[in-house]
Amino acid sequence: MKIAILDGGGRRDGNTQTLTERVVDGIEVSRFGLKEYDIHAISDERHEEDGFHAVDDDYDALMTEVMKHDVILFATPIYWYSMTATMKGFIDRWSQSMRQPKFADFREQMAEKKAFVVAVGGDNPYVKGLPMIQQFANIFEFVHLPFEGYILGKAHRPGDILDDESALYAADRLHQKLKEWTS
Amino acid sequence: MKIAILDGGGRRDGNTQTLTERVVDGIEVSRFGLKEYDIHAISDERHEEDGFHAVDDDYDALMTEVMKHDVILFATPIYWYSMTATMKGFIDRWSQSMRQPKFADFREQMAEKKAFVVAVGGDNPYVKGLPMIQQFANIFEFVHLPFEGYILGKAHRPGDILDDESALYAADRLHQKLKEWTS
Amino acid sequence: MKIAILDGGGRRDGNTQTLTERVVDGIEVSRFGLKEYDIHAISDERHEEDGFHAVDDDYDALMTEVMKHDVILFATPIYWYSMTATMKGFIDRWSQSMRQPKFADFREQMAEKKAFVVAVGGDNPYVKGLPMIQQFANIFEFVHLPFEGYILGKAHRPGDILDDESALYAADRLHQKLKEWTS
Amino acid sequence: MKIAILDGGGRRDGNTQTLTERVVDGIEVSRFGLKEYDIHAISDERHEEDGFHAVDDDYDALMTEVMKHDVILFATPIYWYSMTATMKGFIDRWSQSMRQPKFADFREQMAEKKAFVVAVGGDNPYVKGLPMIQQFANIFEFVHLPFEGYILGKAHRPGDILDDESALYAADRLHQKLKEWTS
Repeated sequence: MKIAILDGGGRRDGNTQTLTERVVDGIEVSRFGLKEYDIHAISDERHEEDGFHAVDDDYDALMTEVMKHDVILFATPIYWYSMTATMKGFIDRWSQSMRQPKFADFREQMAEKKAFVVAVGGDNPYVKGLPMIQQFANIFEFVHLPFEGYILGKAHRPGDILDDESALYAADRLHQKLKEWTS
Repeated sequence: MKIAILDGGGRRDGNTQTLTERVVDGIEVSRFGLKEYDIHAISDERHEEDGFHAVDDDYDALMTEVMKHDVILFATPIYWYSMTATMKGFIDRWSQSMRQPKFADFREQMAEKKAFVVAVGGDNPYVKGLPMIQQFANIFEFVHLPFEGYILGKAHRPGDILDDESALYAADRLHQKLKEWTS
Repeated sequence: MKIAILDGGGRRDGNTQTLTERVVDGIEVSRFGLKEYDIHAISDERHEEDGFHAVDDDYDALMTEVMKHDVILFATPIYWYSMTATMKGFIDRWSQSMRQPKFADFREQMAEKKAFVVAVGGDNPYVKGLPMIQQFANIFEFVHLPFEGYILGKAHRPGDILDDESALYAADRLHQKLKEWTS
Repeated sequence: MKIAILDGGGRRDGNTQTLTERVVDGIEVSRFGLKEYDIHAISDERHEEDGFHAVDDDYDALMTEVMKHDVILFATPIYWYSMTATMKGFIDRWSQSMRQPKFADFREQMAEKKAFVVAVGGDNPYVKGLPMIQQFANIFEFVHLPFEGYILGKAHRPGDILDDESALYAADRLHQKLKEWTS
């Protein structure tokens, strides 16, 4: 059982990162800080005669690595009531992967994995973050990736997340589950 | 009454573009194809001691231009049940603008404008695009930008939007309104 | 092709009724004003040993009639950001029908029908009515009833709906479609 | 600090009731089982010349009692992806109360209270129950009632809720809070 963290954040030691690290404390995971990669915005060539052209960036190699994992934690601060553009840009590229031979069986592979979302926001995330959860649900449903759960946290300033006891509890519960799965 | 189109699309002559051009046919507008600009992902430095650092890209100049308009059309294909990462990346940077002297009175200025959303998607956008509309509503409310209306269209292959009569009607109605406003 | 209107409204000649009558103008339809029927709130006996008990009210006879139709228009004013309690109470009873021999093949029958929603509200229905649309989508999906479209209208005082040109247009389009289907 | 439970359920000892009783265990509360009251569907007479007519049922007396409390727990099983018709019917009547002298200052009074939602459903409530949460948020915002939190639980058969550890934890946390408030 291999676990990947897709970190969409824009700040080191941000609240989302703090919460996510609590989830995986002491567990072997692969961390992918999306911001560290060069990922171009998708060029929508679905309808070009010769389909998508190869893109000279880090996406394919990164996605190839991600696909080797059984559990994917989508960890993103809530920016403007949804995932960061960095994370969205990564997901947007899936449209290309789904048409590439090297990602053949994209959905079949996704169907074998489990997805979790960890997201922290400052402006009433428990209500205003819900469209984002619905959006993730739609995304995962489209690629047949089972949506196993989500953790919403509320925090504004660095460290605030440690005051959100509900989020910490949910993190600890997910920690237990992942620990069982990996032992 | 100056009108700006913020085009978040990733394809020339895409369905969203077709629909948006119908809205502004014969009307003087400024077109900002976000993909043509170099806009870095936001580096969340809200909580750094010295705040956000200047970023060497096109964002500030672009945003300065956008702010000169009275009506903003957010035109985006629906990728993965929300706006494109390109458009999201532009909006994410507002967090920085709101703290910059050069965008002082950000909300006050936004409150004087009017926003419209034009979005076209292929997978049941009339239902699965609704979280995106709710997200836009949250965004606009936060910056006090009046959300005057939205047009959802359904299209998959190039040109399909011309078969969505409801979307075309809505485009024509918005066209009439903008024409009155600008005459 | 038989058409039924399920009218969840609480007012004669209300805006929702005006809009719905425009949809079916000159078309033969069955009108079911839910308020005229005696429909008890569901008594949740799913888990009783002997299941649901027969209820002495109008529901079964009404539902039997409704099931004879091929198109169902769910027409409801938006009260408190969702359908009226009258309409919800009718739908709540479906839980019972789905377990009754007299409604055997409930889902199979529903899968052959087409559903439309017509809903008019006063407080920003185009945004604040969206959770209701999502709820209807969930309901219809559960019973396998194809969700063919919805019309949202904005109106506060009697007759206001005649000023909502978008809603009128959508009503006229649905009118055309139903006319074709029934001719 | 007086606490009221508005129980919209249709089953004795249902999962929602179990969860709600855990929240208020050992705390003095007023329990209002809405199903035990005779509450007519609202007759929308907002626009009648002489306004709403008095209705001969239990609503006014019940609402008068409810308004004497400082905290209101809206406890409802999730039927068809939203609150029960019984609870919706009670809320629908608020439209009348807001226009009655005996409920003068309806919003001002509501603004002094705190609302919580406790809702249990069987079909993926953590995702498919979200439109209901958004609906409650809209309702509470309209009457200026602070929305202090919600607990979603997953359960299908009687007693199942005891297996939803997240819901139990959230119930225990709310229990602590209410205990502090009332001591």
